[in-house]
Amino acid sequence: MIIKGFSFAAVAAGIKYPDRLDLGLIFSDEPAVTAGVFTTTQVKAAPVLIDMERLRQGRSQAVLVNSGCANACTGREGMNNALETGRLLAEQLGIEQDMVLLSSTGVIGAQLNMPAFRSNLKPLVEALSPDGFEAVARAIMTTDTVPKTVFRREMIGGREVGFMGMAKGSGMIMPNMATMLAFVVTDARISYSELSRALKSGVQESFNRITVDGDTSTNDMVLVLANGTADNDWIDDTATPAYETFQNVLEEILKDLALQVVQDGEGATKCITIRVCGAKENGHAEIMARTVANSNLVKTAFFGEDANWGRIIAAMGRSGVRFNQDQVDIAFGDVVLVRNGLGLGPEVEAEAAKILREKRFTVCIDLKDGNGCEEIHTCDFSIDYVKINADYRS
Amino acid sequence: MIIKGFSFAAVAAGIKYPDRLDLGLIFSDEPAVTAGVFTTTQVKAAPVLIDMERLRQGRSQAVLVNSGCANACTGREGMNNALETGRLLAEQLGIEQDMVLLSSTGVIGAQLNMPAFRSNLKPLVEALSPDGFEAVARAIMTTDTVPKTVFRREMIGGREVGFMGMAKGSGMIMPNMATMLAFVVTDARISYSELSRALKSGVQESFNRITVDGDTSTNDMVLVLANGTADNDWIDDTATPAYETFQNVLEEILKDLALQVVQDGEGATKCITIRVCGAKENGHAEIMARTVANSNLVKTAFFGEDANWGRIIAAMGRSGVRFNQDQVDIAFGDVVLVRNGLGLGPEVEAEAAKILREKRFTVCIDLKDGNGCEEIHTCDFSIDYVKINADYRS
Repeated sequence: MIIKGFSFAAVAAGIKYPDRLDLGLIFSDEPAVTAGVFTTTQVKAAPVLIDMERLRQGRSQAVLVNSGCANACTGREGMNNALETGRLLAEQLGIEQDMVLLSSTGVIGAQLNMPAFRSNLKPLVEALSPDGFEAVARAIMTTDTVPKTVFRREMIGGREVGFMGMAKGSGMIMPNMATMLAFVVTDARISYSELSRALKSGVQESFNRITVDGDTSTNDMVLVLANGTADNDWIDDTATPAYETFQNVLEEILKDLALQVVQDGEGATKCITIRVCGAKENGHAEIMARTVANSNLVKTAFFGEDANWGRIIAAMGRSGVRFNQDQVDIAFGDVVLVRNGLGLGPEVEAEAAKILREKRFTVCIDLKDGNGCEEIHTCDFSIDYVKINADYRS
Repeated sequence: MIIKGFSFAAVAAGIKYPDRLDLGLIFSDEPAVTAGVFTTTQVKAAPVLIDMERLRQGRSQAVLVNSGCANACTGREGMNNALETGRLLAEQLGIEQDMVLLSSTGVIGAQLNMPAFRSNLKPLVEALSPDGFEAVARAIMTTDTVPKTVFRREMIGGREVGFMGMAKGSGMIMPNMATMLAFVVTDARISYSELSRALKSGVQESFNRITVDGDTSTNDMVLVLANGTADNDWIDDTATPAYETFQNVLEEILKDLALQVVQDGEGATKCITIRVCGAKENGHAEIMARTVANSNLVKTAFFGEDANWGRIIAAMGRSGVRFNQDQVDIAFGDVVLVRNGLGLGPEVEAEAAKILREKRFTVCIDLKDGNGCEEIHTCDFSIDYVKINADYRS
């Protein structure tokens, strides 16, 4: 798929490893309306700090992204390096420096390999092509086992609008070093405040609804660039059908990418949705779902394919959400194995264990105490997770 | 070691497995002043609920404890079963029912094996002996690899006072199913309010300072029984040297047991103290130390013996505690590998990696922003942790 006005390139710059795509570029012929959402951690990588500042203008024309080095905890030198990569790229592209956004992912505490950048920015720009999107999706991978992309076309404001999204996540969401990045480009014509609002609400329902290990990255970011070449009626009011369609499509794209990230979770063998219903409020349901989804004991039981609902109810108990234990139902897929707080016995557990052998299933917890309902997506916790993370740097 | 007036027994009752000590009894000839601290989770096991009620009287004479079954999430039947075991034991001992405390550890959601209790309470009582303490410490083990005990004698209030403590913890602190129990008996003569205060402050500095996997049990409890047979001057005022000595000794005993639990952490290969200094307040230091100590990425790096300080600073960044990244120092043992937020390079990291090969070391984080300082003790996160917890019930 191609979106008019956008081009892409990736090269193997040897930033950390040789012969591996590790430097990518997203370029818009004209300044594109751009919104971003960034990691909430206090320890933000240099590129995150730069982008947060530059996005105040709501526009950008290029995103330069590298894997292999996070450029986090690198002090003044790291900041100067990041600024220099942006300056050199702007020269190559013939655009203003502050129209360049920067993104990095990889090991924390190491400085950028500047010779690799200096010698590869020219070939990178020369390689720009409308169909280079997949190559960039590969260049941002770290411990990812597959590139993650999504493509959509939708009628919005009287025109067919295209969307292309990519993400990387080494299986850690809320991750700390292999970190999560996502970029979406679209030819929609939309003003900044609407784009920003659609992105924030979409991230809330997608990347903020997944977890792999509860850690938070120094480098997380999601960027959306909209260049307006679809020539649709301007989306500049949230109270319009066009905005609503745009927001829904963007949310679906972000959800799709987010689930791809969980499915490729480090060491993950399955993807599990924890749904909490019947809570007094949505917020309560979310806190409880998140506590269950992050419990190592629950996640190792999923890996062991053990229908160990005791670990689920124990995690619920420490979530801080008040509930009546004697009216809790728990189902794995369509098998209810706990009714009113009591297990329904070994035969039902054996049925539930069959669900656990599937690659993708839902655990539904019903508190029967209200209408609050939320879902969090997680993966299991395997021996390979420990292997990957005990070995990551070596 | 023997403490006058206390006797102990353990038998292999076959509660879950045959030929394994799984039922223990602590008995005091006379009612002993008794204080307890219990799990803060909402989902409390039946024995926890019973003990919390019974301890309002501040006295007890017997503690009946079993492994193999947590008697949690077992509804009215579980509560009735627990009460019946207490009633039957009281008959055998010839004491009041409400002088019996109950404690269970094991799988959540299963009902107590009542025939095993009914047929074994008489032999259990008959086996009571002043030197049966170690046998009870064995009977409470689940995935523990060693029994955990501590013995002390100390001059308090003009007499030599004895202390014997035991704990079990399957390597999970804040655990959910293999759960943490600790019992201390002493012949100190102390009134309830002083005993209770000393226990609460001691637990705060010991069991509340360790973590294995961040999960919280349905069955956690720490009980202290003081029968007064040492005939020391009554400890009934916290503003006395006798109270101070008592509190210090109790705290040391609880710390000793707590560290034994971390060292025997499920799959643990090393025990690590995370010390945060230079925080604005102690509370800030504790929150940050706890976040680092619970990070799966930090703990897998410890297992991999990788001096990956980036994961530590990333965990600090998401802790919610405000700090100035540019003045952070991090040391492994006596090797400072981060100064003012920047890594000191591969040679220093290689030195730090040597510290990681030790069984026991401290990671010191200095924020240089005040006098707040706290420690949390944790263990590494190994492949065996996943194996143990993926297989626990099968």
